[in-house]
Amino acid sequence: MTQEQHLIPTAGTATQPTSPAALRRTNLSLVLRHLHDHASASRADIAEATGLHRATVSNLMTELLEWRLVREVGIEHVGAVGRPRRAVALHGAHVGALGLEINVDYIAVHGTDLSGRALVERRVTFDTVGSGPDRSLRRLALVAREAGEAMRRAGTIPAGVGVAVPALVDVARGVVAFAPNLNWRDLPLAARLSSALGPMRLPVAVDNDANLAALAEYSSGVAAGTPHLVYLTGEVGVGGGVIIDGKLLRGADGLAGEVGHLPVDPAGDMCGCGRQGCWETKVGLAALVRTAMPEQSYELADELVPDPEERVMEIARGLASGDRRMLDAVAHVGKWLGLGGSIIVNLFNPGAIVVGGYFATLAEWLLPHAQAELTRLVVGSPAAQCRFIASGFGFGAPSRGAATIVVNQLIDDPTAIMDPTLRPAAP
Amino acid sequence: MTQEQHLIPTAGTATQPTSPAALRRTNLSLVLRHLHDHASASRADIAEATGLHRATVSNLMTELLEWRLVREVGIEHVGAVGRPRRAVALHGAHVGALGLEINVDYIAVHGTDLSGRALVERRVTFDTVGSGPDRSLRRLALVAREAGEAMRRAGTIPAGVGVAVPALVDVARGVVAFAPNLNWRDLPLAARLSSALGPMRLPVAVDNDANLAALAEYSSGVAAGTPHLVYLTGEVGVGGGVIIDGKLLRGADGLAGEVGHLPVDPAGDMCGCGRQGCWETKVGLAALVRTAMPEQSYELADELVPDPEERVMEIARGLASGDRRMLDAVAHVGKWLGLGGSIIVNLFNPGAIVVGGYFATLAEWLLPHAQAELTRLVVGSPAAQCRFIASGFGFGAPSRGAATIVVNQLIDDPTAIMDPTLRPAAP
Repeated sequence: MTQEQHLIPTAGTATQPTSPAALRRTNLSLVLRHLHDHASASRADIAEATGLHRATVSNLMTELLEWRLVREVGIEHVGAVGRPRRAVALHGAHVGALGLEINVDYIAVHGTDLSGRALVERRVTFDTVGSGPDRSLRRLALVAREAGEAMRRAGTIPAGVGVAVPALVDVARGVVAFAPNLNWRDLPLAARLSSALGPMRLPVAVDNDANLAALAEYSSGVAAGTPHLVYLTGEVGVGGGVIIDGKLLRGADGLAGEVGHLPVDPAGDMCGCGRQGCWETKVGLAALVRTAMPEQSYELADELVPDPEERVMEIARGLASGDRRMLDAVAHVGKWLGLGGSIIVNLFNPGAIVVGGYFATLAEWLLPHAQAELTRLVVGSPAAQCRFIASGFGFGAPSRGAATIVVNQLIDDPTAIMDPTLRPAAP
Repeated sequence: MTQEQHLIPTAGTATQPTSPAALRRTNLSLVLRHLHDHASASRADIAEATGLHRATVSNLMTELLEWRLVREVGIEHVGAVGRPRRAVALHGAHVGALGLEINVDYIAVHGTDLSGRALVERRVTFDTVGSGPDRSLRRLALVAREAGEAMRRAGTIPAGVGVAVPALVDVARGVVAFAPNLNWRDLPLAARLSSALGPMRLPVAVDNDANLAALAEYSSGVAAGTPHLVYLTGEVGVGGGVIIDGKLLRGADGLAGEVGHLPVDPAGDMCGCGRQGCWETKVGLAALVRTAMPEQSYELADELVPDPEERVMEIARGLASGDRRMLDAVAHVGKWLGLGGSIIVNLFNPGAIVVGGYFATLAEWLLPHAQAELTRLVVGSPAAQCRFIASGFGFGAPSRGAATIVVNQLIDDPTAIMDPTLRPAAP
């Protein structure tokens, strides 16, 4: 994490806290947020960074230590002179965040404690489309309950659930407005999953998968702390999540970052969406397979790629062995990746474009071509410094981001986990 | 202004005010911001909207009335029952904001008081490129001093200056990093103009012209209060300013919103920038003139359009009289305007795209074609609701936005204009 790291606030409010309870909540949150963004800090550091009085920080710290949301991590020696200072770090090993992703053919789960320590990570094959929403919801609840049990056995009680869906999501209401690839429409996922979780009675937040992957990258990925960051999914479809000043960009209708159907070639192929020359027809996985393995293209009529991960591994093996046709195909796709990237950079001027899916798997062959084209096309030399970077999260970024929104909510209002009925046993 | 209007804060800070002076500043700012965003309000409304105590609001109001930053505007009757409430409104007729724009062939000035009332509006022809930075700065200072004198004669003392420049600007330091069309590089405009203003000793803020035009539209234009809004300049060059959640998007290097050189046609014409098929080659004024008046295209070798405003009026007259070739040219350009607009909408999902320059002058012929293409190309039906809207500010949007940043700074910290040495005479 860098000094530049910005906060990820909840829905903004212009008003100042006026009641003692609200002030306490805000101040507890300020202290925890600072510890979340820094590995550890002394009380003096925190007072300086937050603008709170030393005495206030000490009182808050006593309370947070008692609730085991922070822990002493030893002595920090700062400089050659001056007395050493006791440092504290985020703790909350007993407070859990459960992140889920439901996609076309799998469900993934990622459970952490408050400090972000991974406790559960699992991916199960599941035919979401064939199962329909009711059976899918039951299965999602089952996966969540099992993960929750595993976390409980490790001493961590889940305090909230986040769900990533490849969909347009009404975030405020927790409703999946439209998930074309899942064939879901107007599904009140948060309410139904919360009730299906039964006695756990956990609050559920829902968001788009590319948005949550971007959030995961911003929070703990290869470009963590980069205030302006774009994430691109590299699958059959290409989606985008945009972080601006440390916050997810949603736009007027929650539709921002829709990169897959940018019109990049007026003379290009027809896209599945009915338009011509969409970016997805140039850089989606189907486009790569069609060029790299033309003998298989008869299978790709509907832009579906059977066993996509197997195809990508096959291409990776071909590239590693120097297959000329595959190298040319990747160079061609890489050039189009750079062209679309230049549109993103001209408009958003991000510090990094993190790529996931097959873009990450084939990064060593694909990204040099993409980077060269990006640099050629971007206006203004500082913006041209923006790098394509391969995600390190594999297919786990969305579920990791889903856990991150829970952690952020808890840090924004720690009093929710400081309910006297939930007070942890003395250590 | 709508309920949705967001604040335009200064550089964000996560810390809460801890000193009495900081708390007072924050609370004064909250009250003034509410009155800035609403035509008028009662003390009770303000207390409810800001979360401040009624008694606190009353005390602040007494102080603001004394400083004439607000004024009583009469009695508000709310509903059929209940006692009528005295309403107040933003005043500050004695506090001025001076907005300047310096461009290739003119200097514009827009002076307002704190409530946004226009006091001075003027545009003078000036050969900035031929004059070089030193003479240009002297002329800019002269225009500012004359406007300041005119404001003073009207009883309004300028409290700050904003300057719009067609340039990449280092906003924090007030330095013009690079203005290709002015041939300026690394010019410390804020410091030099402030010192050239002599005894006025005013703080000077500098920003990009399209950014400031976007800010003017957000603050008081045809789409005022739309939290997500994009502004497009329509001149020989095409620039963009992007408002996200009520704030200007700058990006990692201050280069966001660079729309002119989006690659929209890999098979398109060469652009002046050396790339191929940039959006500017499709929708810049030179492209329109070339298609609408091909007999004049020999003059356009360098993408320069002599007497651009006269050319636009000539085309407007042709369109009004039903000139088929001009109608076809505008339809063609409108289609490309819609295609580029669809890229903007897919990525930012704004509530409106406000267009200035010749796009606004020819709006009635141009925008229907642009809107149709936008609707066809945008993904997601809510985003397709985004409208192109012609700016009502003519060529005055950047200088108006430059005055707006000064007003915003004053409202963010009203104590700057509550210095006892500046206390106004009793009314």
